[in-house]
Amino acid sequence: MRPQIVLFGDSITELSITSDGWGGALACTYSRKADVLVRGYSGYNSRWALFLLHHLFPIGSSRPPVAATIFFGANDAALMGRVHEYMHVPIDEYKNNLRKIALHLKEISPSMLVVLITPTPIYEEARLEFLRTYYGENVAKLPERTNESAGAYAKQCLEVAKELCLPSIDLWSKMQEMKGWQKKLLIDGLHLTAEGSALVYEEVVRVLGEGGLVASEMPFDFPQYSEIDWKNPEKAFPQQSWN
Amino acid sequence: MRPQIVLFGDSITELSITSDGWGGALACTYSRKADVLVRGYSGYNSRWALFLLHHLFPIGSSRPPVAATIFFGANDAALMGRVHEYMHVPIDEYKNNLRKIALHLKEISPSMLVVLITPTPIYEEARLEFLRTYYGENVAKLPERTNESAGAYAKQCLEVAKELCLPSIDLWSKMQEMKGWQKKLLIDGLHLTAEGSALVYEEVVRVLGEGGLVASEMPFDFPQYSEIDWKNPEKAFPQQSWN
Repeated sequence: MRPQIVLFGDSITELSITSDGWGGALACTYSRKADVLVRGYSGYNSRWALFLLHHLFPIGSSRPPVAATIFFGANDAALMGRVHEYMHVPIDEYKNNLRKIALHLKEISPSMLVVLITPTPIYEEARLEFLRTYYGENVAKLPERTNESAGAYAKQCLEVAKELCLPSIDLWSKMQEMKGWQKKLLIDGLHLTAEGSALVYEEVVRVLGEGGLVASEMPFDFPQYSEIDWKNPEKAFPQQSWN
Repeated sequence: MRPQIVLFGDSITELSITSDGWGGALACTYSRKADVLVRGYSGYNSRWALFLLHHLFPIGSSRPPVAATIFFGANDAALMGRVHEYMHVPIDEYKNNLRKIALHLKEISPSMLVVLITPTPIYEEARLEFLRTYYGENVAKLPERTNESAGAYAKQCLEVAKELCLPSIDLWSKMQEMKGWQKKLLIDGLHLTAEGSALVYEEVVRVLGEGGLVASEMPFDFPQYSEIDWKNPEKAFPQQSWN
């Protein structure tokens, strides 16, 4: 059976399934090699993620994923006292939640490649514009997220990865290396443009590859047609598959 | 757990996972409602599909798919005596193979929505051009597939659907209704353009919907964030998920 790569996260993961999204691109890259399952939940923070953990990754599963990305923090870092405060999770709790998620995945499968991804940077001007359109000028006087806060959460994410010896992707820093990242990589100061998604895709493919999941080197789930002797096709298939 | 929709077929299914493909578009439509699993195998005919059947759809599975598309015939209909004759399957055998596949799926889950899709029409001029580029003019004197042959196989596919009371999609006819289908809908006289893929997507979504799988009416796999009481989030989740 085909191995599974699970993308666990918030809206930035949920939306990755769209035609120019990083999840869709990963599914294409691992075509006939692995199934890429998107488990993104818009608006979820790391605290709510814990409620899903045992459902999505049950202990005793006979077929745990070979890899998983953990990509939370954008909502945890929403500021108290602003319009999305209900999503806020204190930074120490966030760090601890990430640790719990990663350790749970390693518990169900010590060989699972668990990748921690930091929140993206925030372009505050665009956030404010978005909030004003959505909630009106009276409600939204200040952006509900700041780049500084996202950066602080990103730092904790990287620390958990270091502490548990897991690979990580520092999107918060990586994206800000690009000139004009604010509009090139982000739609609304938070979610990814097609170009932003392409950057995330490149990073995830690189880290999965470094962890041994190079798509071009992985076996096809069944023989390619060119390997099948058309006069004796049964020789190309394991017997149990057609008995 | 999220239900599964499996797309079982040849290259036209395998390639559907690309960014403008019908499989990718379906995955997006059923986001957080169902997983769309692409099980497309380039070059495979219905005879080779039988070797995969018990692997992909094992008897006794505790979680069979809720729906599956069966989309073979393009390779079966390749003509004897021409460059792809090794893919050829006699038309009666093709019909019988489709029947076996459909009945197997119904055996593992009588409630599974099994959709039969006919082969696409063939634009012979483009096939010949493709074959000449690939094999040289000396080898490829005639197209290896004809529209007439594809049509005959399509007819058998529809007959199997009728016989077993299964929904079907007559792509062979549907695509030819569009003026300029030869180049608008097909890249190389056989595989789908983005526009061709969009047509297949529309048809599959329609038939899945008629069979009860309307994405907008299906439940989310976990609550949307707007339904979660942030002061008591645990109330929104089944207890076993976080114990």
